[in-house]
Amino acid sequence: MLKKEQNDLLTQTGPGTPLGELFRRYWLPVMLSRELPAPGCEPVRVKLLSERLLAIRDEEDNIGLIDEFCAHRGVSLWFGRYDEKGQGGGIRCPYHGWKYAADGQCLDVPSEAEDSGFRSRIKLTSYPLVERGGILWTYMGPPEHQPPLPEYEFAMVPDAQRFVSKRIQENNWLQALEGGIDSSHVSWLHRDSLKSDPLFKGAAGNQYNLKDLRPVFEVVDTDTGLLVGVRRNADDDSYYWRITPWLMPCFTMVPPRGDHPVHGHFWVPIDDENCWAWSFDYHAGRALTEGEVQAMEDGKGIHVRYVPGTFRPLQNKENDYLMDREAQKSGRTFSGIEGIGMQDASLQESMGPIQDRTKEHLTSTDNGIVKMRRALMKAVKALAEEGAAPPGTHPSAHHVRSAAVILPRDQHFKDAAAEALTAQPGRPHASV
Amino acid sequence: MLKKEQNDLLTQTGPGTPLGELFRRYWLPVMLSRELPAPGCEPVRVKLLSERLLAIRDEEDNIGLIDEFCAHRGVSLWFGRYDEKGQGGGIRCPYHGWKYAADGQCLDVPSEAEDSGFRSRIKLTSYPLVERGGILWTYMGPPEHQPPLPEYEFAMVPDAQRFVSKRIQENNWLQALEGGIDSSHVSWLHRDSLKSDPLFKGAAGNQYNLKDLRPVFEVVDTDTGLLVGVRRNADDDSYYWRITPWLMPCFTMVPPRGDHPVHGHFWVPIDDENCWAWSFDYHAGRALTEGEVQAMEDGKGIHVRYVPGTFRPLQNKENDYLMDREAQKSGRTFSGIEGIGMQDASLQESMGPIQDRTKEHLTSTDNGIVKMRRALMKAVKALAEEGAAPPGTHPSAHHVRSAAVILPRDQHFKDAAAEALTAQPGRPHASV
Amino acid sequence: MLKKEQNDLLTQTGPGTPLGELFRRYWLPVMLSRELPAPGCEPVRVKLLSERLLAIRDEEDNIGLIDEFCAHRGVSLWFGRYDEKGQGGGIRCPYHGWKYAADGQCLDVPSEAEDSGFRSRIKLTSYPLVERGGILWTYMGPPEHQPPLPEYEFAMVPDAQRFVSKRIQENNWLQALEGGIDSSHVSWLHRDSLKSDPLFKGAAGNQYNLKDLRPVFEVVDTDTGLLVGVRRNADDDSYYWRITPWLMPCFTMVPPRGDHPVHGHFWVPIDDENCWAWSFDYHAGRALTEGEVQAMEDGKGIHVRYVPGTFRPLQNKENDYLMDREAQKSGRTFSGIEGIGMQDASLQESMGPIQDRTKEHLTSTDNGIVKMRRALMKAVKALAEEGAAPPGTHPSAHHVRSAAVILPRDQHFKDAAAEALTAQPGRPHASV
Repeated sequence: MLKKEQNDLLTQTGPGTPLGELFRRYWLPVMLSRELPAPGCEPVRVKLLSERLLAIRDEEDNIGLIDEFCAHRGVSLWFGRYDEKGQGGGIRCPYHGWKYAADGQCLDVPSEAEDSGFRSRIKLTSYPLVERGGILWTYMGPPEHQPPLPEYEFAMVPDAQRFVSKRIQENNWLQALEGGIDSSHVSWLHRDSLKSDPLFKGAAGNQYNLKDLRPVFEVVDTDTGLLVGVRRNADDDSYYWRITPWLMPCFTMVPPRGDHPVHGHFWVPIDDENCWAWSFDYHAGRALTEGEVQAMEDGKGIHVRYVPGTFRPLQNKENDYLMDREAQKSGRTFSGIEGIGMQDASLQESMGPIQDRTKEHLTSTDNGIVKMRRALMKAVKALAEEGAAPPGTHPSAHHVRSAAVILPRDQHFKDAAAEALTAQPGRPHASV
Repeated sequence: MLKKEQNDLLTQTGPGTPLGELFRRYWLPVMLSRELPAPGCEPVRVKLLSERLLAIRDEEDNIGLIDEFCAHRGVSLWFGRYDEKGQGGGIRCPYHGWKYAADGQCLDVPSEAEDSGFRSRIKLTSYPLVERGGILWTYMGPPEHQPPLPEYEFAMVPDAQRFVSKRIQENNWLQALEGGIDSSHVSWLHRDSLKSDPLFKGAAGNQYNLKDLRPVFEVVDTDTGLLVGVRRNADDDSYYWRITPWLMPCFTMVPPRGDHPVHGHFWVPIDDENCWAWSFDYHAGRALTEGEVQAMEDGKGIHVRYVPGTFRPLQNKENDYLMDREAQKSGRTFSGIEGIGMQDASLQESMGPIQDRTKEHLTSTDNGIVKMRRALMKAVKALAEEGAAPPGTHPSAHHVRSAAVILPRDQHFKDAAAEALTAQPGRPHASV
Repeated sequence: MLKKEQNDLLTQTGPGTPLGELFRRYWLPVMLSRELPAPGCEPVRVKLLSERLLAIRDEEDNIGLIDEFCAHRGVSLWFGRYDEKGQGGGIRCPYHGWKYAADGQCLDVPSEAEDSGFRSRIKLTSYPLVERGGILWTYMGPPEHQPPLPEYEFAMVPDAQRFVSKRIQENNWLQALEGGIDSSHVSWLHRDSLKSDPLFKGAAGNQYNLKDLRPVFEVVDTDTGLLVGVRRNADDDSYYWRITPWLMPCFTMVPPRGDHPVHGHFWVPIDDENCWAWSFDYHAGRALTEGEVQAMEDGKGIHVRYVPGTFRPLQNKENDYLMDREAQKSGRTFSGIEGIGMQDASLQESMGPIQDRTKEHLTSTDNGIVKMRRALMKAVKALAEEGAAPPGTHPSAHHVRSAAVILPRDQHFKDAAAEALTAQPGRPHASV
């Protein structure tokens, strides 16, 4: 149970908020690379950490994330027009032709004499936009603190080994993250999907998930986040461990199931009442099969189907997520909602735009959540009060993996699974 | 004309508000019995007095009204799943399987050892849900003050003698109630319907309604509400009296017309800007005819037609209530709106979500309204300041009737119509 | 760049606001005459300067603008019913039959004795509604300050010489007006339309608009507004002048193009986040041609196409104004938006409901805007602090014209174009 001030602190990420300042020290995924497919393509309006921005890619192939609005009189540059190739790049405001580079620098104010120096004093807020792993990333913090590019394993493997999607989730980022590090709900909410979903079913470990409903949480603080270890009984002398890494501030990985690709998420604030649920699948040891890719495109596993032309799920709160009471009664799905991704999203949205954590009642299986909040609060405080560099901004922190392993009862996962929990190019994930 | 503080007092019924506390001392209608038709049926989200609740009926046929949200992390239990028959009843949260009984008691927290005592300390807010007269009723106040079950006559007659419906009205409850005890608007707003509506037309008294446009109000304070007597000239030596009872806090009855069934309403706050308009018809002396029931189902009388699958009227503010200027010009309807129920609802909604009573100008025919407000304020004050038991919570208060009678001019309705104003099993209503 | 208080002052026009008081000293256009076509026609709900009003035209052909809501209990009189011809006119509230004249005076309270004097003490807020030039105008200020009727030239010419339309614009009035006196954006936003729009193309002066992108602004303060003179290079010894008059508080005229009809606008606040963009075309010297009228009805020039049955543009923010990136790329339209009216409206709406002027960066070509704001603030202050009569309320101020002329470089437009800038019956406008 949090105090109201604590809940506010952990859910508000707009400019100037303490947690917002923390978020701005990390590279964050902004959009799929294919949303900006080619030079001169349509600019894209982006809202991130409550800032309204515009992603552009001009005719000279300069790419950047700039303030959506012209510095002159506030017109949206989404209506802007790129200068033709050979004209020095940039996008012009359609109102009076002010031109901006992809880094926000004003390049031309046609009504003013060039030697007036006027245009050189105009610069829009802007952030870098760089491609890696099918995703465009940005860093919204002070330039002097910008870390090297991210090195999450899923983004570093060859393209054929990865699938990435994103969807809008209509609630605060934190309750989405809290679902991502909560390994215990799988045995309930997703239990029927464990048996039927093509990207989950058939793994040997699934039986332990379904049988032992009283998992024990052991949560290890790393320097850069957490390893949420959850053990269930396997054989008499062994435990089935599922280990979920959380990296600051909003990256989580699902423990693997057999040879299925490994799933993971970013939970990125759009504003305080909406977030992007980024969902990826990858296999460190092989290309994804055609069948796997097809299943992901069909909304299986952690992916979803969309309202055409949008990133909004077809199942959403306006249609009660196409809840099917018959499917619930017959046991095809525990909550009546189809699809693992929407099973999570429906419940998290049902908590309201911002969950009121002054009313919650946590148990031992919420241990990961409790420690995650503490780690965030500590880092926020250190940054705000001492200017301390937030943990895990350097890409060396990214070389982590989830794992699902059976260990003798007398071994602790942290040591026994140390190798399994470390990314290594070409080596497949460890999974029962 | 009210002061702003008075208007606030009489229109706000959320938890902790003075009027909200008063409302919570009475049995209130929640839903139609057929909305919870059988054990294991779909739970129903209910908002009442600004509280978000869930009506459940589990596989063991336990029925109750509980907090919509799980005590654990706030997920909506609407997505919940009943335990199968033979498992002790209750509904499980789909997130982690927490199970609740129909009285809100937590029965199981699967992740915790049973002997931890954890689950026994968890109990959701809950209210009883009991069936009577085709309606499920609840009492949301302190258990020690819970009165015996309601005994409104319409709810006590055999089912064949009663018809009940409800509709959402998109404004504060008070302006709806004020329409219900305002007998004078009938001669204007409903005057054309008096001649054409199958459930109103043909009564001998209707002529007086239409002829005498200057009714005289005599309002009698009872211990438990009001009797709003309205007299119009009948013959030279007699008056036509229409007597409308109001019972605290939100029950009203329409004076009858000939042998037509008698109409009545509850005006129940959903939140401060929406209310349920409950509408019933009954005849104390006989079964309703097939024709009468059909008319009620067709939205005649005080009933309405719906947007399919909802309790929202088909005529609503988005479509200007299907206002028909030609029908208004030709005199088929005075306001251009079809149907007595929607004639009232359209105008009451047009006052805005919460009528601003600091701007009103009342007349002598608003006397019932003035006295009703005074009675409410007095009861609210007595409860808040002295803890005084609100008037009329005991079912003995419910044995009241409306009446429409012709009396010699020298007789006061209260004495002369005393018997007519009292419910008595099997005896038909008194009506001209 | 404005301070927040200044921005608030210039954008808020509700009752009691300083600028609202100023607006209420002028005749303002309310609706098209054809919206109230005949005695007994449907009343029209009108929101103006944040007041909710009702335009009525009763069976006796009395016309007026009254408070939308009945003084009794607040019902919307839009549902009201006119008394039949011969009954003294007026509209009755459908609830209890209270009757009001077109000047707001209560004529009848049926439940009260006529000799009680009750009804004579009830009078709704009301404003006059008078017809001129196809428009119904109102004056919402103190009666003792009511000026004579407006005499804008477009409204005084014979009907065949004029075309008037209006559309809703979903932003504050000020950013719309600021577009109206900003002659410099034409060379950018509208440059392609100059070549293709049937009501703009072909004028000899267009070439200067398109060639000289560094216009020089010379803004002349008149007693009653501004003359915004903008010169561009023509021949070596001459300038092409486009002169835009602004009359307090919200009237502007577009400089003409050849023999095309002259365009102009009123920008009238509905509330603080919406305004009416009134658009007129007229020719002082001749009737409009059939082709011109057809083009205007088709949404050419400054007019637009509508969502059927409304005054909302078919191109609006819900459909991104039907933005066409291909048309933008190919150069058919600079911003991808079709139509001069919607080119302006789309950008102005993109600034947000109320532009935040604390973030703007103005240039020399915004000189007209700067001076307009100063003139408004000065007049507001003089009215508020000294009760000084606002400038230009008398119709003598209305006899102004826009002009587009070529002048020798050594002549100032104010003197050299003095005659061109003055309305004179029958004399065509001066235009290159």
